[in-house]
Amino acid sequence: MEQRILLTECSDGVGLIAKVTGVCFKYNFNVIRQDQYASHEDKKFFMRSVLEGDFSVSENFLAEVKSNLPADAKVRLNDAQARRKLAVLVTKEAHCLGDLLMKSYSGALNADIVMVAGNYPDLGDLAAKFNVPFHCISHEGISREEHEEEMCRLIDSYNPDYVVLAKYMRILSPKMVAHFPLGKLINIHHSFLPAFIGAKPYQQAFDRGVKIIGATAHFVTDNLDEGPIIEQDVIKVNHRYSAQSMARAGRDVERLVLMRALNKILSDKVFIHSNKTVVF
Amino acid sequence: MEQRILLTECSDGVGLIAKVTGVCFKYNFNVIRQDQYASHEDKKFFMRSVLEGDFSVSENFLAEVKSNLPADAKVRLNDAQARRKLAVLVTKEAHCLGDLLMKSYSGALNADIVMVAGNYPDLGDLAAKFNVPFHCISHEGISREEHEEEMCRLIDSYNPDYVVLAKYMRILSPKMVAHFPLGKLINIHHSFLPAFIGAKPYQQAFDRGVKIIGATAHFVTDNLDEGPIIEQDVIKVNHRYSAQSMARAGRDVERLVLMRALNKILSDKVFIHSNKTVVF
Amino acid sequence: MEQRILLTECSDGVGLIAKVTGVCFKYNFNVIRQDQYASHEDKKFFMRSVLEGDFSVSENFLAEVKSNLPADAKVRLNDAQARRKLAVLVTKEAHCLGDLLMKSYSGALNADIVMVAGNYPDLGDLAAKFNVPFHCISHEGISREEHEEEMCRLIDSYNPDYVVLAKYMRILSPKMVAHFPLGKLINIHHSFLPAFIGAKPYQQAFDRGVKIIGATAHFVTDNLDEGPIIEQDVIKVNHRYSAQSMARAGRDVERLVLMRALNKILSDKVFIHSNKTVVF
Amino acid sequence: MEQRILLTECSDGVGLIAKVTGVCFKYNFNVIRQDQYASHEDKKFFMRSVLEGDFSVSENFLAEVKSNLPADAKVRLNDAQARRKLAVLVTKEAHCLGDLLMKSYSGALNADIVMVAGNYPDLGDLAAKFNVPFHCISHEGISREEHEEEMCRLIDSYNPDYVVLAKYMRILSPKMVAHFPLGKLINIHHSFLPAFIGAKPYQQAFDRGVKIIGATAHFVTDNLDEGPIIEQDVIKVNHRYSAQSMARAGRDVERLVLMRALNKILSDKVFIHSNKTVVF
Repeated sequence: MEQRILLTECSDGVGLIAKVTGVCFKYNFNVIRQDQYASHEDKKFFMRSVLEGDFSVSENFLAEVKSNLPADAKVRLNDAQARRKLAVLVTKEAHCLGDLLMKSYSGALNADIVMVAGNYPDLGDLAAKFNVPFHCISHEGISREEHEEEMCRLIDSYNPDYVVLAKYMRILSPKMVAHFPLGKLINIHHSFLPAFIGAKPYQQAFDRGVKIIGATAHFVTDNLDEGPIIEQDVIKVNHRYSAQSMARAGRDVERLVLMRALNKILSDKVFIHSNKTVVF
Repeated sequence: MEQRILLTECSDGVGLIAKVTGVCFKYNFNVIRQDQYASHEDKKFFMRSVLEGDFSVSENFLAEVKSNLPADAKVRLNDAQARRKLAVLVTKEAHCLGDLLMKSYSGALNADIVMVAGNYPDLGDLAAKFNVPFHCISHEGISREEHEEEMCRLIDSYNPDYVVLAKYMRILSPKMVAHFPLGKLINIHHSFLPAFIGAKPYQQAFDRGVKIIGATAHFVTDNLDEGPIIEQDVIKVNHRYSAQSMARAGRDVERLVLMRALNKILSDKVFIHSNKTVVF
Repeated sequence: MEQRILLTECSDGVGLIAKVTGVCFKYNFNVIRQDQYASHEDKKFFMRSVLEGDFSVSENFLAEVKSNLPADAKVRLNDAQARRKLAVLVTKEAHCLGDLLMKSYSGALNADIVMVAGNYPDLGDLAAKFNVPFHCISHEGISREEHEEEMCRLIDSYNPDYVVLAKYMRILSPKMVAHFPLGKLINIHHSFLPAFIGAKPYQQAFDRGVKIIGATAHFVTDNLDEGPIIEQDVIKVNHRYSAQSMARAGRDVERLVLMRALNKILSDKVFIHSNKTVVF
Repeated sequence: MEQRILLTECSDGVGLIAKVTGVCFKYNFNVIRQDQYASHEDKKFFMRSVLEGDFSVSENFLAEVKSNLPADAKVRLNDAQARRKLAVLVTKEAHCLGDLLMKSYSGALNADIVMVAGNYPDLGDLAAKFNVPFHCISHEGISREEHEEEMCRLIDSYNPDYVVLAKYMRILSPKMVAHFPLGKLINIHHSFLPAFIGAKPYQQAFDRGVKIIGATAHFVTDNLDEGPIIEQDVIKVNHRYSAQSMARAGRDVERLVLMRALNKILSDKVFIHSNKTVVF
């Protein structure tokens, strides 16, 4: 039977689950999995319901759900099987892009990588192996603004659902960030934020003598490395690690954290809630 | 406002969430947290709902919930603040009992330890520090059956909600297991089951040369170490570990796993589902 | 300056470190990293020393080291930069092979994959992307013995240093195992051994209702899944996981565990000690 | 046979291991475990050797070791069984103190807790259970300087080997820090430093929306939370955690991290190296 994912966001109140699932019941949609969360501090309600049924006759379903909810409600009904389109930005490091290509190729990532763009040509060969278009837009000899405008035009031409910064080692200007809706730009940062914001986090970690290093996948906002965190993980290090060997060891956690974040996003399990995320 | 926990178990079907939350809405109970799960293989439905409201006028609430559900439904409404009673069985090792006593004392465990019983007197001094009655029932000179009968009589005299085998190094006979309802006896086993069932798991782990050791909290059934698993965790070891140092290192994971399992149970987050558990 | 790795194995005794490092000092080799281990139970000594110096004049060095050690000593001096040759056996699953190819390609694995062989043709396309020869030797229509003989001939023709069973879903006969020296065949098994030995470990894990699943990299011996364990790791699962989703989630831990094991082996950090390993 | 731990620190150079182990061999001391580390950046050498032998005739041993090493060498020979003395400072939270008392009592911590001092009286009852002297020195009504002077006088009167700040919620002035040699004051901080330095780290973690929280054990220096890190660990959290429930969940990782750090220190496995640690 067909599956759809119903995503509900609104102000919290008594009876919301009853109201939404009541409409589902009326349309004979079986709720085969549901997660909900109501925030204590600002009284927001988030719900993800996986529905099974005959959606061919469901024209009025969404409208009826919405009519039962507070005026600020946002309701979406997504196809659970839909394969989204990803644009990937890179610089020189292969491990995150490699994992994305391999997992998309082998069916372990429910998305198509429609293009890869880099400010260096290094990873063009890797993208070519998987028949993914690669574009090098060098940042040399042009202004940051020109570079970003060209990059945005290129990205837009592919009309991707998400833009993944897969170790793209350039800081996006507020203008470029504002070019995309919040939630469309996903970055992997090579530290467990908020530790080691900014450049060279492994060197910072080495200098500080930490015993764990990590990685953070987050949505991109104006403030460098301060967007809503989606997923984080760490690995243990010790005094034998140089900044270089931390970077080497960190690559596995970077690609895993990025992949877990993407899988959650592609399954519609991530809501943005102020500067945080709700991840079901 | 008062909080109650509504626990629902029944055969799966369309509209169950709507039906239960619909009754909650009718009684003006706010669902402040809800988790539900429907098993794919045998079509069972489990739900835990934390309700907030005025329960003084709720006399018919449970009956009305039940009347909306399949005939096999089990429905309970528990006081979220209720402090349960634990009986703890031990042998000689202090770490699990120590953690239980300390956490109950400091308020980190929402339960009262009403008594400790051991087949050796070693831990009586520890129980006494926390003013908990300790009973030594030696297994020497009497039959297994006599020992278990005495132990059961003693336990029953305290009328505990749960019996925790906190490194109680005796195998319970089917008769003793049958003396208690399923779900009342909780054991901590010092291996990541099903590896190293039975005696001396650390020696077995050492002999096999594993690189991880672990612990498993489970409900006790007739089959040794084969009851429904509630919680498991592991730690890394290496070639430097002897069986003795594995045992030493394993104590921390044993007490943590037991404590996490108990906290889940005491929050009514654990359902038994055939020979497995659903843990919200 | 050049680096070599000195590997020492012998019966334990007083003064072994002094004797070996004394010879190193005499030849003016700086010990830039050293790990040693003496087993308590059977009195074996293992040492790995990373030496830096001028090895062009070291002709007699190894002999002199050996002359200072017990008669059963095995001493090797490896080039720390040497790039070993791997043959990889596969069936249909892409994730382990994919990681091997990607890491070898990007320089994150200090080895060349000289060939891939499968009993199905499915992964030929993936190997081709990285210009690695792929051979399909179907097991259909021929005896196990014939299949293994052909496989061994093929492997031998590439003269690899190690043979990696990267989700090769066939059980090797004792004859095929005996064809290779102990330590040359490396397998990744999709459970935390010794739990779930043999076929369909994820189905076994699901049936048992475990809360952790794992993977084990080990050397292959005659006894199925009972060879010396090199590396293990686990991930948490819960009641929502089917056998299929456990398998999916397990892929990441399988490839990570295999890769960590290989990196240790390729850095000469793994000694076989009876049916266990010493991993520095 | 008797065991001693030989600790060596000096400028790095060729032949150090040979020189030290050569003297050990001469005195017929068996090296049953040894770890060494040479820092790349500032060329320091650290070694810990566990020796077994007859130390009654070893009067000149240490002098002979030292005479073979660079002039800046620090060499110590500790009794491996020696039970050190700990003074513990607390405020109101019981979990770290509770674990220290329980582990010291049950033999899992190789140290005696000679006294507990708090700026509140709350934990006096807990210390009394284990017959450990408790002193309350209230910080109210006196200056910070007076409070610290009194605290130092009290600590000194017990002549402890280490002072453990077990959730002592006061910032030590540089003067109080300087009162003790570097390495004597050990703090547990409730975040994975350098994230969330200073006050209310769990509130900071909640506000930032992190997905992991952690704890850090470190030696205390003049700079708040910036001393050499000994041990760190983390646990996963999600959007359901409030600052309070993070604090509750964090307690287990705090006490484990503190305990692991102390066990390493009490086994003489920790060297301070500039603002970092070498932990064998």
